[in-house]
Amino acid sequence: MPTLKGKAVVAQSGGPTAVINSSAAGVIQTCLDHRDIFTGVYGSLNGILGTLKEELFDLSAEDPAQIDRLKRSPSSALGSCRHKLKDLEADRADYERILEVFKAHDIRYFFYIGGNDSMDTAAKLGKLARETDYEMIAMGVPKTIDNDLACTDHCPGYGSVARYSAISVKESGRDTDALYTHDTCTIHEVMGRNAGWIAASTGLAKRREQDAPHIILLPEVPFVVDKFVEDVQRCLKDYNRCFITCGEGVRTPDGEYLADAGGQFVKDSFGHAQLGGAGQAVRAIVESHVGVKARTNLPGTMQRVAMHFASRTDVEEAYLAGQAAATAAMEGVSGKMITLVRGEDSGQYVCTTGLADLEDVANGEKMLPPEFIDANGTGVTDAFIEYARPLIRGAASLDMGDDGLPMYAQLERTPIAALTAPWR
Amino acid sequence: MPTLKGKAVVAQSGGPTAVINSSAAGVIQTCLDHRDIFTGVYGSLNGILGTLKEELFDLSAEDPAQIDRLKRSPSSALGSCRHKLKDLEADRADYERILEVFKAHDIRYFFYIGGNDSMDTAAKLGKLARETDYEMIAMGVPKTIDNDLACTDHCPGYGSVARYSAISVKESGRDTDALYTHDTCTIHEVMGRNAGWIAASTGLAKRREQDAPHIILLPEVPFVVDKFVEDVQRCLKDYNRCFITCGEGVRTPDGEYLADAGGQFVKDSFGHAQLGGAGQAVRAIVESHVGVKARTNLPGTMQRVAMHFASRTDVEEAYLAGQAAATAAMEGVSGKMITLVRGEDSGQYVCTTGLADLEDVANGEKMLPPEFIDANGTGVTDAFIEYARPLIRGAASLDMGDDGLPMYAQLERTPIAALTAPWR
Repeated sequence: MPTLKGKAVVAQSGGPTAVINSSAAGVIQTCLDHRDIFTGVYGSLNGILGTLKEELFDLSAEDPAQIDRLKRSPSSALGSCRHKLKDLEADRADYERILEVFKAHDIRYFFYIGGNDSMDTAAKLGKLARETDYEMIAMGVPKTIDNDLACTDHCPGYGSVARYSAISVKESGRDTDALYTHDTCTIHEVMGRNAGWIAASTGLAKRREQDAPHIILLPEVPFVVDKFVEDVQRCLKDYNRCFITCGEGVRTPDGEYLADAGGQFVKDSFGHAQLGGAGQAVRAIVESHVGVKARTNLPGTMQRVAMHFASRTDVEEAYLAGQAAATAAMEGVSGKMITLVRGEDSGQYVCTTGLADLEDVANGEKMLPPEFIDANGTGVTDAFIEYARPLIRGAASLDMGDDGLPMYAQLERTPIAALTAPWR
Repeated sequence: MPTLKGKAVVAQSGGPTAVINSSAAGVIQTCLDHRDIFTGVYGSLNGILGTLKEELFDLSAEDPAQIDRLKRSPSSALGSCRHKLKDLEADRADYERILEVFKAHDIRYFFYIGGNDSMDTAAKLGKLARETDYEMIAMGVPKTIDNDLACTDHCPGYGSVARYSAISVKESGRDTDALYTHDTCTIHEVMGRNAGWIAASTGLAKRREQDAPHIILLPEVPFVVDKFVEDVQRCLKDYNRCFITCGEGVRTPDGEYLADAGGQFVKDSFGHAQLGGAGQAVRAIVESHVGVKARTNLPGTMQRVAMHFASRTDVEEAYLAGQAAATAAMEGVSGKMITLVRGEDSGQYVCTTGLADLEDVANGEKMLPPEFIDANGTGVTDAFIEYARPLIRGAASLDMGDDGLPMYAQLERTPIAALTAPWR
């Protein structure tokens, strides 16, 4: 089969991460190195929305230094979206619109960097293209801080949020230690709506039994108030302090998010429901049921774009995934997501890439497995540490500015003239 | 006057910082280098409480490598406290108790690293010692992330929290940028109960008009809801997004903390008062009055101990301040706090130390001056940037462990046997 020639579109979707731009750089630089195959390299502004709206921009017109700097720049430089396309039947007009735009520009390669919704979109687009005999290649590049994508050992984005979460808990745990003249409690809420991978990563901060975090609340382990209160009381008895990591997706035994259910636990003492997330609910429980003052840390969006303490391993693997997607596409591979495959060389962790069907990723979700959770349900096992530690290794490099802060990439986003009638 | 010989006590007080241990290292290493003068170097566990309780430990018994590592370790390695001694008249028994412990151990030098309450304690202790003819030297070393101490150009601790706050806003501002397919708002709450120095430091993140932060809410500028809502609406119109830094100490025109008053603004839409701090109150106002979804970041204790992104300038100046305190004490200086003095050499920022009366520091408080606040009251001026930029320069060094995270100092704290009857 002769190699398919045509333009390539790169798009980013979902929540930003520290390394999603590194994946984009991997795709873009590989495509630009093969202009005989890729007759143009476009960015789709704000994920798939940019294609629907025909808001494309010319990545070959960007300063190559800025493209290279994407490896060292957090957040989604191509713009992101939360736009989810439904089934081919339900949203057929949108999928057809995308193909209309692709055909108009002779776009033959579509690279979607995102989570399982993005893989779903890429899969369905590829399917419609086949059905309608439009020759094109759709490839997925994994991205999520949550680390819950199926078929891959881990996800680009996770190593960096894990590294940042671990340092944040190591440092604020020392803060809690310093004021131990009275019982004190700190609650540190991390992201992870369904899976506890990020919460678990704070366990990397613990070198000694007395170190923070003392309690890790995971979405995988139902939150039982009485048991939690006993755990906190025991910790305070032992150490006069208690540092709690709270995953935002922690649920009650009924499956309700603690963030939503929080009010019921604190009505007795405060007389009204509690606003705020899981961390605020846990704080209210500590103050009302244990009677100890508690502080809350909410890293919020800071945690997912903390390039300044990103993992070099993660940055490199993110790039590798992008590069592998472009390389596989040139070889005619389509309908696949690049996976990260863990290996070992002379006892050292190594990472290579593999391929998974987009459909398998789209329909899967990977929770923290039982063997990574300790017997009490509030900590991680050595097996988890062994899994996670290689992923946070090394400091990512930064281009520092004269003002003492990093220089992050700014793309010009030179628009490509529209060739179709406006969408909708 | 012959040099006073005797033991030295070092104590840390108040909220931890990234560099309070660097100041301790400056005092301790200088004292240990002059054992002819300092016949012993003790730590007072948890600030002045350790002296009241006679919980002293031997700093000369520590591994010198751990003492040196204090320069690269956040939080208060000697333990901290929030114990405030009142007037000499009201708390005379406590001051006398401290002198009793000092006399029992032949302690002639007292170094207190802390904020204005600590300077007050040191000043009064020195006064009682003079009154009772106990020859001793009391010296203060400035410490506060809030940067609100009088008599000094800036405070050790501020440069590092400023650097961390600026990077946090630069990065999470890019996160807000990435999802600009709809109006969106991020509120980033920083510490600073009375002064807006930390809130202002997030202005260092802004290189272009459209960069975060778009609005900085300062304790120095009364918060007027209607004006704020207009500011947010204008920003959303211009950029489809609005990134707001909110100082925890923001107040209404009546002088009430927004954190306490927040409920009144959101009762209309939610029907009950709002828990949480100023950031949550601002978020509720944005959601109810502007009608835009808002996220909250609450760096909490993370911000004050973020050694992993501390300012090298700050670390070095903190050490210098500790060193200068010990050196001045050897020269017979007493009743003074070391100050940081800004200078210039060939157009470059330089910093030296000076001395201020402990009483002057104890009774002063330094707000953000009007010339550092822009005309709209929601941003900083070039004069502020010029003031703050040198303070965040350079990356602090870290001792990295094999596990990919920094090694922070752990002191053994070998107890000194008590020589007096128990306190109280």
